[in-house]
Amino acid sequence: MSLALDPAAQDLLFREARTANAFTDEPVTEEQVQAIYDLVKFGPTAFNQTPLRIVLVRSAEARERLVPLMAEGNQAKTASAPLVAILAADNEFHEELPKLLPHFPQAKDMFFSERPVREAAAGVNAALQAAYFIVGVRAAGLAAGPMTGFDFAAVQKEFLDDDHSPLMIVNIGKPAEDAWFPRSPRLEYDEVVTTV
Amino acid sequence: MSLALDPAAQDLLFREARTANAFTDEPVTEEQVQAIYDLVKFGPTAFNQTPLRIVLVRSAEARERLVPLMAEGNQAKTASAPLVAILAADNEFHEELPKLLPHFPQAKDMFFSERPVREAAAGVNAALQAAYFIVGVRAAGLAAGPMTGFDFAAVQKEFLDDDHSPLMIVNIGKPAEDAWFPRSPRLEYDEVVTTV
Repeated sequence: MSLALDPAAQDLLFREARTANAFTDEPVTEEQVQAIYDLVKFGPTAFNQTPLRIVLVRSAEARERLVPLMAEGNQAKTASAPLVAILAADNEFHEELPKLLPHFPQAKDMFFSERPVREAAAGVNAALQAAYFIVGVRAAGLAAGPMTGFDFAAVQKEFLDDDHSPLMIVNIGKPAEDAWFPRSPRLEYDEVVTTV
Repeated sequence: MSLALDPAAQDLLFREARTANAFTDEPVTEEQVQAIYDLVKFGPTAFNQTPLRIVLVRSAEARERLVPLMAEGNQAKTASAPLVAILAADNEFHEELPKLLPHFPQAKDMFFSERPVREAAAGVNAALQAAYFIVGVRAAGLAAGPMTGFDFAAVQKEFLDDDHSPLMIVNIGKPAEDAWFPRSPRLEYDEVVTTV
């Protein structure tokens, strides 16, 4: 009763949404991915840096290059998911800052002139955006299967470049029957939240 | 039209929601924070590690200790926000894994026996949960003002401990009039998404 978001939306995004391990054959269209992006691009990041970059693995050839780079337990589902997205952090996001932060263009040089600082910022803020993206996949009525079990260096070499660090790989589609494990427990409020 | 989430919810969570820099005096209740947590705790993390920990700064005494640790441009809004939350990553989250991952309790020792591995995992996954939390604040009809402009080492020393790394500080409340800058631009779909 304390939330403004209607209960159906709560269910769609959090309560009934689950990490899927199996999918139907129904394709995920370009229009759906664009609609997801056009929603979640508004999620906040520090200095509006929005460092998330997304590689959609759509061709059979690219899929064949990706699957062997996944951990064994992730290979079958990555091979069969309707769409696979590689989420990465752009460590050179600062080049876009004058456009992204028009009221404070000097942020680019004041805060992000050093690569290690950029890598740390890009990692955290791309992770925020990865979470918004997962919420957006669910907002599209689809299930996401985010995975970090893969060879990060090999995925970077095969699909990205030195300026883009992989963050996670997400299988996307309509969940099949028996698409998930039983829900694992969550920590209680008092285990997570303290008050001072 | 490609999204299952109804347009009012899209607006509430992403399109009209904004990072607030000023708030009304209306308090944020314990019940609201619990409702936010009880929704966003379901957001996925790797191995269900859920490393996010939250310190609610409610007492005047704690607020007085926090404000001087904020960057100058963040001090006034942090002093006046109805509620301030310190979001942190628990680098010892693995101690909870046997409870959180009952079907795979050996993950604790197989993957997370080394502190640097835990710190990296906790940082990424707490960032995912920080994004879910921001979405949850908006789901409660409130505005979030996430900030990374503060003295991280000093906040850790003053409010956390060696096992908990600060991630961001979030002001929470009903937005005041003129609570935000004009919306900054976002990257176009084709600047972010490539297909292979």
